[in-house]
Amino acid sequence: MPVGTAATVKGFTQSALEDLGAEIILANTYHLYLRPGHDLIRRLGGLHQFMSWTRAILTDSGGFQVFSLSDLRKVTDEGVRFRSHLDGSEHLLTPEKAAEIQLALGSDIAMVLDECIETPAPRVAAESALLRTTAWAKRARKYFLDCAAKNGDPTQWQFGIVQGATFADLRRRSAQQLIEIDFPGYAVGGLAVGEPHEMTCEMTGVATEELPKEKLRYLMGVGRPEQIADYVSLGIDMMDCVLPTRAARHACMYTSEGRVLIKNARYAEDQRPIDPACSCAICKRYTRAYLRHLFTAGEITAAILATHHNVHFYLDIMRQIREAIEFGNLAKFSSAMRARYAAGPA
Amino acid sequence: MPVGTAATVKGFTQSALEDLGAEIILANTYHLYLRPGHDLIRRLGGLHQFMSWTRAILTDSGGFQVFSLSDLRKVTDEGVRFRSHLDGSEHLLTPEKAAEIQLALGSDIAMVLDECIETPAPRVAAESALLRTTAWAKRARKYFLDCAAKNGDPTQWQFGIVQGATFADLRRRSAQQLIEIDFPGYAVGGLAVGEPHEMTCEMTGVATEELPKEKLRYLMGVGRPEQIADYVSLGIDMMDCVLPTRAARHACMYTSEGRVLIKNARYAEDQRPIDPACSCAICKRYTRAYLRHLFTAGEITAAILATHHNVHFYLDIMRQIREAIEFGNLAKFSSAMRARYAAGPA
Repeated sequence: MPVGTAATVKGFTQSALEDLGAEIILANTYHLYLRPGHDLIRRLGGLHQFMSWTRAILTDSGGFQVFSLSDLRKVTDEGVRFRSHLDGSEHLLTPEKAAEIQLALGSDIAMVLDECIETPAPRVAAESALLRTTAWAKRARKYFLDCAAKNGDPTQWQFGIVQGATFADLRRRSAQQLIEIDFPGYAVGGLAVGEPHEMTCEMTGVATEELPKEKLRYLMGVGRPEQIADYVSLGIDMMDCVLPTRAARHACMYTSEGRVLIKNARYAEDQRPIDPACSCAICKRYTRAYLRHLFTAGEITAAILATHHNVHFYLDIMRQIREAIEFGNLAKFSSAMRARYAAGPA
Repeated sequence: MPVGTAATVKGFTQSALEDLGAEIILANTYHLYLRPGHDLIRRLGGLHQFMSWTRAILTDSGGFQVFSLSDLRKVTDEGVRFRSHLDGSEHLLTPEKAAEIQLALGSDIAMVLDECIETPAPRVAAESALLRTTAWAKRARKYFLDCAAKNGDPTQWQFGIVQGATFADLRRRSAQQLIEIDFPGYAVGGLAVGEPHEMTCEMTGVATEELPKEKLRYLMGVGRPEQIADYVSLGIDMMDCVLPTRAARHACMYTSEGRVLIKNARYAEDQRPIDPACSCAICKRYTRAYLRHLFTAGEITAAILATHHNVHFYLDIMRQIREAIEFGNLAKFSSAMRARYAAGPA
């Protein structure tokens, strides 16, 4: 899922995203709650109508941004009290409020509020966050079902989020407790936040072993191009990541041959496309030399072209993975990607 | 002509510009000379190939930017010595050099180097700049024709530039001297730089009375939406202006009902398109409320959508003017536009 934080995938028009074949995007509840506000979006017909996007939208709970962006956050059993990073105003995000906001936004998939903790976390902190996450998930589910009973089926799916930091038994317990609540889909949260990739995979595998195969399983906030196939191998169906869009704006291009840091002087007269093996509209038309020039000159067109290519590259990874699964080649595809993206920066 | 300063119309992909029906764009010689350099662009096949734009390109001489952007400029009969606004390096722009750079860029229409002076200018300064402009035009023409004789017809048209500040007789003399040199087209320069619109029109009219009708006549650096028809009435065929693109990036939208400053709080829940009478892709799909949100959130997508609309609006003015000419309605169209854009900021 490309990330469209504030109801736009930065640098994309909606029709360009459609042309690329994006079927679902992620929008951030924290940002939309603060600006322009979920009530405004509800009055204007919901997020789909507001941003003119008829395909699927997943919203997060806002929790992750509260924990990472806002000031003065204070977590109690009730919820998280925080100050807006925009104007310092004080807000209280509870499991019910997070569900209410997302119902107002009218996203297709909504996430429950979970407690995010810093890693590495001591076991006692991880266990306490997990218990609170379960308690919050119950309240969020109850609020959601009460609303559905009152207002009719909202056509929204609400997902629970497995926590448990880097402790396999806690991950298992978290998954089991969420399954008991019964969600139409499950996410795995609190991973890819600094721990080694092997640990991310181990914890993801522990969770997916527990989570029902017939329901969607979503690994939040991943990943690098060479890691995606690993997560799919572990049973993950959905991922979101700012990497393709954010890296693009910083002139880091993903290609079939690895990363191309396009501002490098070596590309000044390079007449090849960003990725000679790529079929996207940017690679068909523009050279590395031109893209380097646009970045060097600080032109916003640079971000448009680069973002288009990188999102195409990510969506194409998923297409290739589906094909590899069909032909039984996933392990081979995965190791080929790893070889290309061996070391170096994300 | 939309302005594509650094080989890109800010916020546009080339295919989006093509879809809008832009037939010609302007690129700035000063900027491209400094970065990435005309020699690099020549080695990569010229500006058309560099930026992947097969339609027409007009380049200015670089003079206007030297006079307005660079430091330490010193004008002599030889040319203008200046320091780059990018790195402080010293350069000398002569009539020959300006022609050479534009031949390297391979634009379809090139401008001779002229001396731009501040307005209001005393008559003696205006006359001296005019004489130097004529002398430079002769040298530029000679350099151009010598190159053509040596290397074959470059398929480039070189235009002379009428100067003379706000003095009718000087404007006339400038035009006559350029006609004597014999260019395939003529521009009127040094106008719309602060003088009243009536004066711009008077001086433009004086110039076009002299300039041959069968050749293209180009008024440089104009104009506001309500002024364009006036210039066409005076015999002007071509104009360029940063206004539609620059205003768009500052959230000023041009509409059939006048300017819409889209960041205004009154548009926060406005579900109408930017311009209900507009047929552009942005007006078909997005609301004022959404555009306002994107600007308020500082999203680059705001610039993309707004620029698209404003450039469409400007190109549409020209389409409407052509139609009005055919039906003999130009004066009526002109006064209707003036009524809509009566007062207020550009």
